[in-house]
Amino acid sequence: MIDITLLGTSSMMPLPERALTSVFLSCDGHSILFDCGEGTQTAARKAGVSLMKTDMIALTHYHGDHIFGLPGLLQTMHSMGRAEPLYITGPEGLTDALRPLLTLAGTLAFEIITVLIPDGGLELDTVLKGFKHGAKLAVFKTEHRVASRGYVFTLSRPGRFMPEKAQALGVPETQFKLLQRGQSVEVDGKTVFPGQVLGAPRKGLKFVFSGDTAYCDTLTEAAKDADLAVFDATYAEDEQADIAYEHGHMNFRLAAEAASKANVKQLWLAHYSQMIKDPLEYIENAKKVFENTVCGCDGMKETLLFEE
Amino acid sequence: MIDITLLGTSSMMPLPERALTSVFLSCDGHSILFDCGEGTQTAARKAGVSLMKTDMIALTHYHGDHIFGLPGLLQTMHSMGRAEPLYITGPEGLTDALRPLLTLAGTLAFEIITVLIPDGGLELDTVLKGFKHGAKLAVFKTEHRVASRGYVFTLSRPGRFMPEKAQALGVPETQFKLLQRGQSVEVDGKTVFPGQVLGAPRKGLKFVFSGDTAYCDTLTEAAKDADLAVFDATYAEDEQADIAYEHGHMNFRLAAEAASKANVKQLWLAHYSQMIKDPLEYIENAKKVFENTVCGCDGMKETLLFEE
Repeated sequence: MIDITLLGTSSMMPLPERALTSVFLSCDGHSILFDCGEGTQTAARKAGVSLMKTDMIALTHYHGDHIFGLPGLLQTMHSMGRAEPLYITGPEGLTDALRPLLTLAGTLAFEIITVLIPDGGLELDTVLKGFKHGAKLAVFKTEHRVASRGYVFTLSRPGRFMPEKAQALGVPETQFKLLQRGQSVEVDGKTVFPGQVLGAPRKGLKFVFSGDTAYCDTLTEAAKDADLAVFDATYAEDEQADIAYEHGHMNFRLAAEAASKANVKQLWLAHYSQMIKDPLEYIENAKKVFENTVCGCDGMKETLLFEE
Repeated sequence: MIDITLLGTSSMMPLPERALTSVFLSCDGHSILFDCGEGTQTAARKAGVSLMKTDMIALTHYHGDHIFGLPGLLQTMHSMGRAEPLYITGPEGLTDALRPLLTLAGTLAFEIITVLIPDGGLELDTVLKGFKHGAKLAVFKTEHRVASRGYVFTLSRPGRFMPEKAQALGVPETQFKLLQRGQSVEVDGKTVFPGQVLGAPRKGLKFVFSGDTAYCDTLTEAAKDADLAVFDATYAEDEQADIAYEHGHMNFRLAAEAASKANVKQLWLAHYSQMIKDPLEYIENAKKVFENTVCGCDGMKETLLFEE
């Protein structure tokens, strides 16, 4: 199961009722924060989630509205006694982008570890202690005005475990868990492979965060069949498609077209321009293209569950 | 007349219903922002004041909760088309403190000018174009854990202008305004001094912002007879006087004692620790010492007017 909380939905500047766009993902007691603009720590408190134990902060790019909340959040973590290392990832230029932010944050009682996401994605439990096995974070290139990326979080689900088959192969019950997690075990000098005791892999869960981007093929490919997608919808009106493209953003309609092409289950619009007073007024611009669109709003939550 | 808006009342970390402590002062269409923590720009929008034309930002010290809102505010000013220079003042180390903040803010279409406040204060209209004549900003040393200061804003009020005296001295009406502002004028080769046409100077207005400080004599001296004082009241309970002193702060009672000793008209408490859920619960700790104490809250406004 994955819990998604949309902490903010604004772009460029934080507004009293609309924090800057960021997403908090938690899974089995561990968590990732996507982007951290000014006010993200307040938005999280408002939404009732704690960022204090966030394992990783994943930045889509280094524009101020996505990173200026970092020094304050790091100082708060420090003053709340955090000791565990904090992983930070982002597109090329991460070290340079972090330098002034970390200078401001000053001395911290915990370590900051920058991490690269390899092609093919990062199995999170290989880096983040205790993160759920089968959770993977992958990135895709987006089209913004600077180096930028979106994120795909997937949680795989192995096939159903068949204890009778494991027993027949002589596997002691204490080792069942390893096989269930997809690892082989040794029994009397013979290797038992997960495939021998598991049914066909079942459908996992998939969440996609576009960050800031124009409509592009890398987005629709990365978002393929996602359960939930949070997409850039900076502009509301159909007539703003050109200006959206020019600035490396989407409008409501383009976000919906990307969701439709990617066949996602549900789309949340976010990263609204401050010119949009009430996003709901424009929701039809998206819904006419992709019915299962929701106007994201601050504090919105969704739990993604494995199908029965 | 001076308008004071308390933008926030929190310390250390911004809370959903309590932004970090800062004060917006406006006078005759010009303005000064005192401190700028994360979220100050949002707090200002919430309070219905615009920071976009702020003439000067005056920092009390360089702890994160007083400065982390700067990069975002500067970028917002830039994107809103600001062209006028912005003056920034603060205690020693200003240039070093600003460096990472300005690195983050990036290229701005307006100039940042750092300004020192001389001993004796700065007549604001000598630096800030169009600032009301007679407005002065002075600083005083405070006792915090780093280089820190508080601010005194005064608006002087010349004596009542006596047009009949000016007329008798042959001053043309077009020059009355100069005399009223305290400037001399030349009439037929003779100098007419303001003192010749003005009554005795009248009581002006005075506002004091303590920044972060322990109880100290420089504070009570600087705040002498102020119309309004916003004081550090990080701790609520009388028993916390020692811990307050240790951390370079005051508690409710000490803030009230400072206000009483300084004979201020009205005291607003601010900079509450996040441990204080409802400051009003503790107001008696201050009121028993200084009756005219108000628990500051975000968005609180006061207009200071000259006496009739």
